[in-house]
Amino acid sequence: MKTFYNQDENYVNEMLEGILSAHPDMLKKVNGEIRAIARADAPIDGKVAIATGGGSGHLPVFMGYVGKGLLDGAAIGNVFASPSMNQMLTLTRAINGDKGVLYLYGNYGGDIMNFDMASEMAEEEGIKVKSLLVTDDIASGEKGNESARRGVAGIFYAYKVAGACADEGSSLEEVYNTTKEALEGIRTLGVAISPCTVPGADKPSFSLAADEMEIGMGIHGEAGIRREKRKSADEVTQDMMDLLQADLPINKGRRSKYLVKVFKLSWKLFLYTSTLKHLKH
Amino acid sequence: MKTFYNQDENYVNEMLEGILSAHPDMLKKVNGEIRAIARADAPIDGKVAIATGGGSGHLPVFMGYVGKGLLDGAAIGNVFASPSMNQMLTLTRAINGDKGVLYLYGNYGGDIMNFDMASEMAEEEGIKVKSLLVTDDIASGEKGNESARRGVAGIFYAYKVAGACADEGSSLEEVYNTTKEALEGIRTLGVAISPCTVPGADKPSFSLAADEMEIGMGIHGEAGIRREKRKSADEVTQDMMDLLQADLPINKGRRSKYLVKVFKLSWKLFLYTSTLKHLKH
Repeated sequence: MKTFYNQDENYVNEMLEGILSAHPDMLKKVNGEIRAIARADAPIDGKVAIATGGGSGHLPVFMGYVGKGLLDGAAIGNVFASPSMNQMLTLTRAINGDKGVLYLYGNYGGDIMNFDMASEMAEEEGIKVKSLLVTDDIASGEKGNESARRGVAGIFYAYKVAGACADEGSSLEEVYNTTKEALEGIRTLGVAISPCTVPGADKPSFSLAADEMEIGMGIHGEAGIRREKRKSADEVTQDMMDLLQADLPINKGRRSKYLVKVFKLSWKLFLYTSTLKHLKH
Repeated sequence: MKTFYNQDENYVNEMLEGILSAHPDMLKKVNGEIRAIARADAPIDGKVAIATGGGSGHLPVFMGYVGKGLLDGAAIGNVFASPSMNQMLTLTRAINGDKGVLYLYGNYGGDIMNFDMASEMAEEEGIKVKSLLVTDDIASGEKGNESARRGVAGIFYAYKVAGACADEGSSLEEVYNTTKEALEGIRTLGVAISPCTVPGADKPSFSLAADEMEIGMGIHGEAGIRREKRKSADEVTQDMMDLLQADLPINKGRRSKYLVKVFKLSWKLFLYTSTLKHLKH
């Protein structure tokens, strides 16, 4: 992979230093722990605090959504690795106002283990915590086995719903219930055309032939549903819509058509952006 | 290049359709011309209108900056090609309120020819127009030959200054003079590590060896100052700062140090983003 950075081992911390220096009015590290980033004005009384966390390497997920109307803080792990229980607990203490903390994060083993431990520790300190897992990726678990599904791009909508609900002064239970209901209507699907190379690694995490794409690949390169020949943007969009609608049918005629249209247009926009990245690199 | 789109020839228009559909409250095409995009609320009386234009293929430059506090509209050409005089004139008519129009765009031959013709046509119709070229790229012209320099990333600051000045109700002359003064303090420099492939082309526009970078390359792949072995982020930052400071010295000790620091941190952030793009593709 051709890119710039300094020492591999400083990559995540230097990225965080840069972000903190660019936005000192919006973000801060808590208790000297650069892997626990909170809103500059945390803790906020009268508002449920929302925390997330996860590995680095896929910004803006997760810390890119810390801010007004969204998250109160994020714990940040190494590339594709969970942050530690201590980082989560440090963050929890720093963002807890007087209405408790919602943990809202993607369905990955390491994150679950550490957030569950942090939750227990926080409860022992008298901080009220509830946890919600995001499982929007239909490619990583069969219908009926939704709990196996990973959290990917759909986590943004969950953040937004939870953040708006918390901003209205709702209780922890209300923010939890509203966000849970929203999550039941969120489904996503990814398509990959090329692999990533983790900083420090000497080769990409996997390979895809020049004319291949993989439907349903996860954000760390987890295997998807199938590989096939690359298609046009419109064809890929239709395939994705078919899979999404089969998983969570939208039955009201006009609404469904509207959604397909919006999705197709979003997709074109995404494709354009994606193409631009190729143009630039 | 591995990416998704439909027919090459529909690439730019489909991108614009997507952006317009995503932001119907903010943007509109004017007179059915999708290559002339304006703020949805244009024309705005009491405010100088600011227009830009240029080729496609390097979003968010240029149309990504159409909006409140920034530009009133942009004319959009094909990939790396100037929009036509007619597209610029159509745009000019649509955004002109009662205080005239400032053309603010990058220093490229085709754009200059077409904007100059559009300016003459608009003046004949009684629309007051002034033009400012952005020439921030120190790599494309020697010191003393600034008029040879291309407009690149620094154009954003010119947009912001002009947009803020216009929002305050300044006259066309005031917006012109304020933006011109700002431009005299804007210098940028680019470093490239890989080429782009224009949609429809069968190979990248140029090649760079796996361990090479090019200092000063333009946004369309124009030759820079020199090629050399790739360095660490900190080393590249120092080299860039040395070139920028030699071109426009910053003499007040503390301010200079501060700028280097801010620049280094921005750079780290950029590098991180840049690296992410590689990770994702």
